[in-house]
Amino acid sequence: MATETMEVSALTAEGVLKHWQGHRGLTRRVIEALPEDDLFSFSVGRMRPFSEMAWEFIRMAVPIVDGVATGKWEELKAEKPTTKSELLRLWDEQTAELDEKFPKIPPHRFSEVDVAFGQWKNAGIATIQYAIDNEIHHRGQGYVYLRVLGIEPPPFWERPM
Amino acid sequence: MATETMEVSALTAEGVLKHWQGHRGLTRRVIEALPEDDLFSFSVGRMRPFSEMAWEFIRMAVPIVDGVATGKWEELKAEKPTTKSELLRLWDEQTAELDEKFPKIPPHRFSEVDVAFGQWKNAGIATIQYAIDNEIHHRGQGYVYLRVLGIEPPPFWERPM
Repeated sequence: MATETMEVSALTAEGVLKHWQGHRGLTRRVIEALPEDDLFSFSVGRMRPFSEMAWEFIRMAVPIVDGVATGKWEELKAEKPTTKSELLRLWDEQTAELDEKFPKIPPHRFSEVDVAFGQWKNAGIATIQYAIDNEIHHRGQGYVYLRVLGIEPPPFWERPM
Repeated sequence: MATETMEVSALTAEGVLKHWQGHRGLTRRVIEALPEDDLFSFSVGRMRPFSEMAWEFIRMAVPIVDGVATGKWEELKAEKPTTKSELLRLWDEQTAELDEKFPKIPPHRFSEVDVAFGQWKNAGIATIQYAIDNEIHHRGQGYVYLRVLGIEPPPFWERPM
């Protein structure tokens, strides 16, 4: 039954950020759940270890928000983490940075078409959506790694913020 | 660089449907890519075969759109497919049904909170978004199945409509 309560809609910029941060919280749990060695070396089907996938998410998140906000597309300036704690520290820095930068994206930039990193032509919102979808896709693969390792993955429906 | 072209924004109902159908087209390719036996029996890490995941997507898609549109939450009335061709036929029927029904969702229902299937309390758009995210998540697992079977998965960035 419908109630009178209204939640932040995913159809707003605020809703997209909340949705993304919820997913990022879940991805953080997958990083945490993997034993350090497995995080950097375990994989299935000759795919990448989950640390490489997480590094991909990190290289996309803030640079994409910067690019959508400003029209300047620049690679992330950060060293690739070699330990779980370094990876999580970088993850948490980006969490704070996204909260700060996302609300400053000029509204017209969500629908404006731009060429992300000089390569992918799309509306700003579609580029952001791609980053979120890519994270969900590869995190699902991380769930398989956890299952094969005999580790119970975090519940998919929980979106820790 | 920004151009004058404007695309359908994912921040509109039309954009959400287009985004979903693009993902559904990709999921269809994963169903097609799996050999029939493997579709119904192969899995990794004691997870479900991909046919079970696809059946879950089917049981969610149209019933959720019906529920968000009308406030009536009803289980899908369909037999569980036992062959790839039956599964694909049901998939394609839902593709057409979503195209027909989604645009008829009353706009206020996207932000209105309802209890999906008497169980999950959320805004309409969040329930729809959950179905899309759930599909991306499990399809990512289907990609691992394909890799383990030595089959090249379809490109993630392609969204056939």
